[in-house]
Amino acid sequence: MTTRDFEIARSVLVGDTADIYLHRTLTILRNEGINPDVAVEFTSDRDGVIAGVAEVRSLLSRVLPETGREVWALEEGSHMARDEVCLRIRAPYAAFGLYETAVTGALSASSGWATGAQECVEAANGVPVMSFGAKYVHPSVAGILDYSACAGGCQACSTVLGGRLTGLTPFGTMPHSMILLIGDTARAVTAFDRHIPPEVPRVALVDTFRDEGEESLAVASHMRERLRGVRLDTPRERGGVTPELVHEVRARLDQGGFRHVDIYVSGGLDPERIKAFNKAEAPVSVFAVGRYIAASPPIGFTVDIKEIDGRPVAKRGRIPGIRENLRLERVL
Amino acid sequence: MTTRDFEIARSVLVGDTADIYLHRTLTILRNEGINPDVAVEFTSDRDGVIAGVAEVRSLLSRVLPETGREVWALEEGSHMARDEVCLRIRAPYAAFGLYETAVTGALSASSGWATGAQECVEAANGVPVMSFGAKYVHPSVAGILDYSACAGGCQACSTVLGGRLTGLTPFGTMPHSMILLIGDTARAVTAFDRHIPPEVPRVALVDTFRDEGEESLAVASHMRERLRGVRLDTPRERGGVTPELVHEVRARLDQGGFRHVDIYVSGGLDPERIKAFNKAEAPVSVFAVGRYIAASPPIGFTVDIKEIDGRPVAKRGRIPGIRENLRLERVL
Amino acid sequence: MTTRDFEIARSVLVGDTADIYLHRTLTILRNEGINPDVAVEFTSDRDGVIAGVAEVRSLLSRVLPETGREVWALEEGSHMARDEVCLRIRAPYAAFGLYETAVTGALSASSGWATGAQECVEAANGVPVMSFGAKYVHPSVAGILDYSACAGGCQACSTVLGGRLTGLTPFGTMPHSMILLIGDTARAVTAFDRHIPPEVPRVALVDTFRDEGEESLAVASHMRERLRGVRLDTPRERGGVTPELVHEVRARLDQGGFRHVDIYVSGGLDPERIKAFNKAEAPVSVFAVGRYIAASPPIGFTVDIKEIDGRPVAKRGRIPGIRENLRLERVL
Amino acid sequence: MTTRDFEIARSVLVGDTADIYLHRTLTILRNEGINPDVAVEFTSDRDGVIAGVAEVRSLLSRVLPETGREVWALEEGSHMARDEVCLRIRAPYAAFGLYETAVTGALSASSGWATGAQECVEAANGVPVMSFGAKYVHPSVAGILDYSACAGGCQACSTVLGGRLTGLTPFGTMPHSMILLIGDTARAVTAFDRHIPPEVPRVALVDTFRDEGEESLAVASHMRERLRGVRLDTPRERGGVTPELVHEVRARLDQGGFRHVDIYVSGGLDPERIKAFNKAEAPVSVFAVGRYIAASPPIGFTVDIKEIDGRPVAKRGRIPGIRENLRLERVL
Amino acid sequence: MTTRDFEIARSVLVGDTADIYLHRTLTILRNEGINPDVAVEFTSDRDGVIAGVAEVRSLLSRVLPETGREVWALEEGSHMARDEVCLRIRAPYAAFGLYETAVTGALSASSGWATGAQECVEAANGVPVMSFGAKYVHPSVAGILDYSACAGGCQACSTVLGGRLTGLTPFGTMPHSMILLIGDTARAVTAFDRHIPPEVPRVALVDTFRDEGEESLAVASHMRERLRGVRLDTPRERGGVTPELVHEVRARLDQGGFRHVDIYVSGGLDPERIKAFNKAEAPVSVFAVGRYIAASPPIGFTVDIKEIDGRPVAKRGRIPGIRENLRLERVL
Amino acid sequence: MTTRDFEIARSVLVGDTADIYLHRTLTILRNEGINPDVAVEFTSDRDGVIAGVAEVRSLLSRVLPETGREVWALEEGSHMARDEVCLRIRAPYAAFGLYETAVTGALSASSGWATGAQECVEAANGVPVMSFGAKYVHPSVAGILDYSACAGGCQACSTVLGGRLTGLTPFGTMPHSMILLIGDTARAVTAFDRHIPPEVPRVALVDTFRDEGEESLAVASHMRERLRGVRLDTPRERGGVTPELVHEVRARLDQGGFRHVDIYVSGGLDPERIKAFNKAEAPVSVFAVGRYIAASPPIGFTVDIKEIDGRPVAKRGRIPGIRENLRLERVL
Repeated sequence: MTTRDFEIARSVLVGDTADIYLHRTLTILRNEGINPDVAVEFTSDRDGVIAGVAEVRSLLSRVLPETGREVWALEEGSHMARDEVCLRIRAPYAAFGLYETAVTGALSASSGWATGAQECVEAANGVPVMSFGAKYVHPSVAGILDYSACAGGCQACSTVLGGRLTGLTPFGTMPHSMILLIGDTARAVTAFDRHIPPEVPRVALVDTFRDEGEESLAVASHMRERLRGVRLDTPRERGGVTPELVHEVRARLDQGGFRHVDIYVSGGLDPERIKAFNKAEAPVSVFAVGRYIAASPPIGFTVDIKEIDGRPVAKRGRIPGIRENLRLERVL
Repeated sequence: MTTRDFEIARSVLVGDTADIYLHRTLTILRNEGINPDVAVEFTSDRDGVIAGVAEVRSLLSRVLPETGREVWALEEGSHMARDEVCLRIRAPYAAFGLYETAVTGALSASSGWATGAQECVEAANGVPVMSFGAKYVHPSVAGILDYSACAGGCQACSTVLGGRLTGLTPFGTMPHSMILLIGDTARAVTAFDRHIPPEVPRVALVDTFRDEGEESLAVASHMRERLRGVRLDTPRERGGVTPELVHEVRARLDQGGFRHVDIYVSGGLDPERIKAFNKAEAPVSVFAVGRYIAASPPIGFTVDIKEIDGRPVAKRGRIPGIRENLRLERVL
Repeated sequence: MTTRDFEIARSVLVGDTADIYLHRTLTILRNEGINPDVAVEFTSDRDGVIAGVAEVRSLLSRVLPETGREVWALEEGSHMARDEVCLRIRAPYAAFGLYETAVTGALSASSGWATGAQECVEAANGVPVMSFGAKYVHPSVAGILDYSACAGGCQACSTVLGGRLTGLTPFGTMPHSMILLIGDTARAVTAFDRHIPPEVPRVALVDTFRDEGEESLAVASHMRERLRGVRLDTPRERGGVTPELVHEVRARLDQGGFRHVDIYVSGGLDPERIKAFNKAEAPVSVFAVGRYIAASPPIGFTVDIKEIDGRPVAKRGRIPGIRENLRLERVL
Repeated sequence: MTTRDFEIARSVLVGDTADIYLHRTLTILRNEGINPDVAVEFTSDRDGVIAGVAEVRSLLSRVLPETGREVWALEEGSHMARDEVCLRIRAPYAAFGLYETAVTGALSASSGWATGAQECVEAANGVPVMSFGAKYVHPSVAGILDYSACAGGCQACSTVLGGRLTGLTPFGTMPHSMILLIGDTARAVTAFDRHIPPEVPRVALVDTFRDEGEESLAVASHMRERLRGVRLDTPRERGGVTPELVHEVRARLDQGGFRHVDIYVSGGLDPERIKAFNKAEAPVSVFAVGRYIAASPPIGFTVDIKEIDGRPVAKRGRIPGIRENLRLERVL
Repeated sequence: MTTRDFEIARSVLVGDTADIYLHRTLTILRNEGINPDVAVEFTSDRDGVIAGVAEVRSLLSRVLPETGREVWALEEGSHMARDEVCLRIRAPYAAFGLYETAVTGALSASSGWATGAQECVEAANGVPVMSFGAKYVHPSVAGILDYSACAGGCQACSTVLGGRLTGLTPFGTMPHSMILLIGDTARAVTAFDRHIPPEVPRVALVDTFRDEGEESLAVASHMRERLRGVRLDTPRERGGVTPELVHEVRARLDQGGFRHVDIYVSGGLDPERIKAFNKAEAPVSVFAVGRYIAASPPIGFTVDIKEIDGRPVAKRGRIPGIRENLRLERVL
Repeated sequence: MTTRDFEIARSVLVGDTADIYLHRTLTILRNEGINPDVAVEFTSDRDGVIAGVAEVRSLLSRVLPETGREVWALEEGSHMARDEVCLRIRAPYAAFGLYETAVTGALSASSGWATGAQECVEAANGVPVMSFGAKYVHPSVAGILDYSACAGGCQACSTVLGGRLTGLTPFGTMPHSMILLIGDTARAVTAFDRHIPPEVPRVALVDTFRDEGEESLAVASHMRERLRGVRLDTPRERGGVTPELVHEVRARLDQGGFRHVDIYVSGGLDPERIKAFNKAEAPVSVFAVGRYIAASPPIGFTVDIKEIDGRPVAKRGRIPGIRENLRLERVL
């Protein structure tokens, strides 16, 4: 995953997204004739899953001179410990000083999302988790969010772009809007079945108009073997989805002869709530998680020049010289 | 601020960042010949400051038909209450169904950042707050982060793009890297002074090599009236910046005759810590806040079709029909 | 209320429900020829509402000699403070020693229930509260529970016997059983309407088969002006009744033209939850409370001989002699 | 214990203690000609000890038709888990619908008391526990309380009726009143000894007038081998009974040559305090518990029709059809 | 109080109790010929009551040269705020460098005790508090403890030396030992009355053998008008002294005609418990406090050289130069 | 350690530091002719380390008659359990009654300090702990504090007298004062090296003027092999000493070739903070603890006469007669 190539936005390449002081630093150093070879280390400030490595690699491959550069990083999607060196760049300073903001930001945001996703995946204990978080992030990063969530262990995601970046088929059921516009859940599902290619699984949203148990049976009776699953997304005004509801819908489906119909759960899920479903042995087939992953806080990365022309240095508060980390792999 | 025009990325316009199920919904409705006029409302799920309205307006102005559309929204940067209707769109459903993910995501992320910024601004109680959060977000949204932080009350931001979007001069001091590369703080500040246009304020970072008090006096002795301020950014390994440190540096500067030198504080600030500085009457001139604003969780927005061809509707759990809100202004 | 006459069970009158040591004490004192006039005080050990006074008065009127007796008590249903003297009996000891267990027990249990009821009534802040607690107490005291709950402020109760003791018409809607047996909510309500006298209000239980909003509209459409209310009793497996559900059902009923239909709420209510409904301004017409009132802990009463033949006494730990309390009224 | 026969009050048999809506339901069903065979299940809503089964069996044996009825229940005094089916009745609905309140109430109250008793018994870890709770419940249920406490593991109880229901000799020491009336503890104990049959153990209450240690020695010196024990019941105004007091009284009795005298402890005991005595290895012979058992909250039972004429049914929120439970035994 | 003269131990004057590094510092400075005039400030690190000033003054008056010295201090027993300058010494450094440990230690310990005493005095809200703490401190400082407690507001103390230092008559009742040796409380009090001068108040300890209420009446009956008070000191094994016990003993004394007998309370008192007595309006005449005062933690004092030969200095972390404090008074 | 001889102050021997009631008791008993042989036991009221035994032994050896006395005690510095008998004296009461306050006080204070020291020693888990608490106690007990801290496991102490009492060389580095007076850390250390005997270790305080890392390297460069260690004592205004600071200083010293230089840590240490250093594997060579040890609360000792002329006695609340404890050793 680490060497996949990413498109880099022009505004990033020209430095528009950089902190202004980096522009000024480059001006000053150029005027002073200072441009040593440096080794810079990026250190994580909490435990988590690293993501963003491939994108950073793509950016650096476009801006670093081909000779004399060295980039070492942890593998995309692997675990990183607090205070671990996760990325090391060796190159003339002037070649990449401007990109410090972009590199740190990409790692920070992507690793935050991947870490949030992984917490859900762990809680789900084998039940697949899907990333439905696009509606909680700016559209410019919706694809990156989905990519990072999959780096953290999600098995699918909901955006078209996320699908393209991960190489996985994007996943979706149907929105409440469609059912409201058609005016009846069973009719909406039938329309879906009529117009959407057969390889897309038929998963009905069953809480729009009526009780979930009632609606599930109604839809299953219309669709029979063609129905792949039902999605429970009860709003908080109605108590949200509970483990007991999953048990009951499962029992009613089974008693109706619809053992093949899966149950998808969504709506405000987080690791605690996912664990509660598992503890109650609720027969959930898929958890769809949105806000928790999207709201995972960024992971901070400390950036330190550790060598200047081969000499160990550090600012006060840090230990001079590079710190060995055998888990780093050379990516450039 | 609400009517400023934003560039909208192509991937957003073509729907690549949309949830896949919206694509399918449009296919189905088209095949079924369903395309009523609808009223859709976006409701916030917690208190905060709204941002992203101008960008959403720019997007909708490109996709909605000029006749028959109506867009109402709260004013950019104003307060919004939990469960308040913040945005209402009236148009034929097919014209904008695909953009639900993008609109919600832009509001969600931007409002989250604006709200985090405002909490800091309130805590600072009159002392200016600056947004330094770009290193914690993906570079594709660094400018939007800075724009949103200023909507929430920040007086300046650090990225070039943020400056462009807000119309404010971007602000920065100098990175530790530059001082390490030059090898001495006083020499680094002198170099800055030599090469950077005079209208940029000279603010020295004073914790790279030596004790902050010692370094502040050394820099002030070199620069005298030309020095605008010193920035304290003590790392957590050294206990971070404390109110007592600000008092001491202020006293030492005053005793040295440098009453004109301001003190900028940065490093892991959040509303609690800002209040602690104020409570201890620490003479801070500017607070620079990064991670807290960038990590502010997105604010969720519920999207509900409330009218179809003039008829009140709602899914189970919501009240049918639009909800009046006199604070909404027509933006399109 | 305090002088209403109660039937006293034979087992109480013969002392079968008394602690055995009271029987033995009477035997010993008789053999020793000891039977002084005593003053005995009953002191409450926490704040609350007193109940059981009328029943205790009925018991004492049957066992105390008509001359030489004096019974003073607080008024039924009034507030009593911790450590307040609530009942004082003056009589020859042998006339009532055996009934100490019964008198204390009646006050203890009844006051506990009245106090629990009053906490709900206070929380309800003007909205009527009804006692539905019979299913949580032994049938031998179901009527006393209801009587005590009304002494604490409830406006009605559910048992036939409770109705008789309080002089109020017992109140009820319909059980889930009836709806299940008839097989459809609207049909069940119609049957009720057909066979039950018109002065009994028609209140439909609307969560048996379908979503509460849907069912409420269905029932209201059948019954129109004849429907007095709907009762929401959503089980905890479906999240229980929430303020939002009440708001929504209210809105849907109003939009359907059924403004005259009241909303009754039941299911696990306690003062905290009742306050939450009021805080959310949920338009509830009646709260029906069961378990909280029935499970209210008994209030302990300390029983102390304070005078023997006019001489102040007390055991160690208590202050000798009677304690004046101007709130006491002579009831016998 | 489960098949012992109980007397059932007339008011229960005629339905006076039933919720009014059950009367109405029977009227309606009769008029509609509905009276199917049903299976009804009673499910506990928390862990505990079941009691009340024998009494419920006695009630049902009087009202159900002898043919076509089936009653299954857990064994009296056994453990029941949350959500376990504890009682199942199969019969024509009209035969027992009216008794739902009584059956649930009897189980609820009795199981609550048995569960509270069992918590004390467990805490006592082998030291006998006695039920002294009659003064905290209405006299109509004082015997049932004692019966239930013994079902939960108490080794004796204090009321005459409780003794009759359990077949155990009721237990008691002497009340403070008797000592106050006689005027001296040693004289009171001597009087007890003179007038009460020798098989009743002589247990002196030793905190009425003087220090417990002093009084214990005084009583033991008078009574010698005839003294079975002393009861410590120090009021809270004097700090209550502490483990250290028990140790000291034990030591003083032993030093005086009264090793045969047991120590009974009472006064505000609960499982926490009982454990504290055990942890401090206080040589207690018997714990007498009143309020804690009497105030144990009722255990709720959910009542659901699960089959109608052999067809599985359930209201929304419950799983249709009966749930097997191999621990149920047929009692009727 | 601040100018009272104290005896200073020889070991302190020769520096035996000083930290060894102060000895070495004086050696080095002498060899280097360094002995400037300095201003040294002592700053408290928490709020409290200052004590020890008079003793420090006595020490400094013996070691500082009479000309060229200046000592300023807060008034003994006055309030001091956290971070307030409490003592300032101006003198040649060599004259007092050795005594830094002794000066700081005397202020630290004495102020800690005075502060603890004052917390009790405040809690007692007008009822006198006496210092009984000598048994919790080393005998070498028992007198200083009592002196400091009186500086903090105590109205008397228990040691002979404390009495001498404060000029107050030491106060005491009688120990349990004396009563045990004489074998009876009333006889012990009579013996006290026979042999101790009449101006010493007769206060009987009443919990040695019997119940406090019983013993109080027995002693009062023997002593009548000659009894000044009774002291309640119930051990924790008997629940300690409670507000209810004070009320009861008061009532029993009053009922016996002994209104003139005061009630002294001791045994594990602290501000919280003293407040509980006041809140319950317990009629206590005197609180005797031991451990709480003796265990009051020392108050730390920071010692900083702030001027050297008139030039402001400070170590890193402190503000250079003296800090004005108008509350300081010149004491030498 | 238990039999080391201590000097006893005259004020203690004449009883000036005793509670006045002991003087009166002796007067009364003498006049009454009461002076039995008694056994008195001292019982600790919490777990801890006992200290003060040797000093108490010295006092008793001066006041008890040589024949007929017996003193048993736990070993100095050993563990004592709550409620354990720690000291037993057998002698005629008149010989030592006056010294109850002094004996209890010496044990109380010394054991408190030893216990506090031992908590630090345990937390340090093998790293030496030194007692620097003299500045927080009255100078009259500074030596006893240091002696007790060493009884609790400290390996050295700071006062001259403490050194004499323990037989250990007192330990110290240098005060901030000396560095301020000399004006430069490196020059101060050089002066120390010039004038102080070579067997005293050279340990430099490195936070007076400059950053600790910078200063450590500067001092080490001047002193080279002659430098034994650096002491970190960063004030709280600068965040105090952190584990990260120790790591960094260690790394910088090692990179500079100064692996032989130890790191001493001081400043507000307590067991929690010491554990945090160990958990972070900070390479600390010595912990110097002041306030925590000095502020350790005294341990209370209950004093009870348990035999009078061979007869077991006790006041109410205690068990009569001595309690065997095989850990006691005869010390006199």
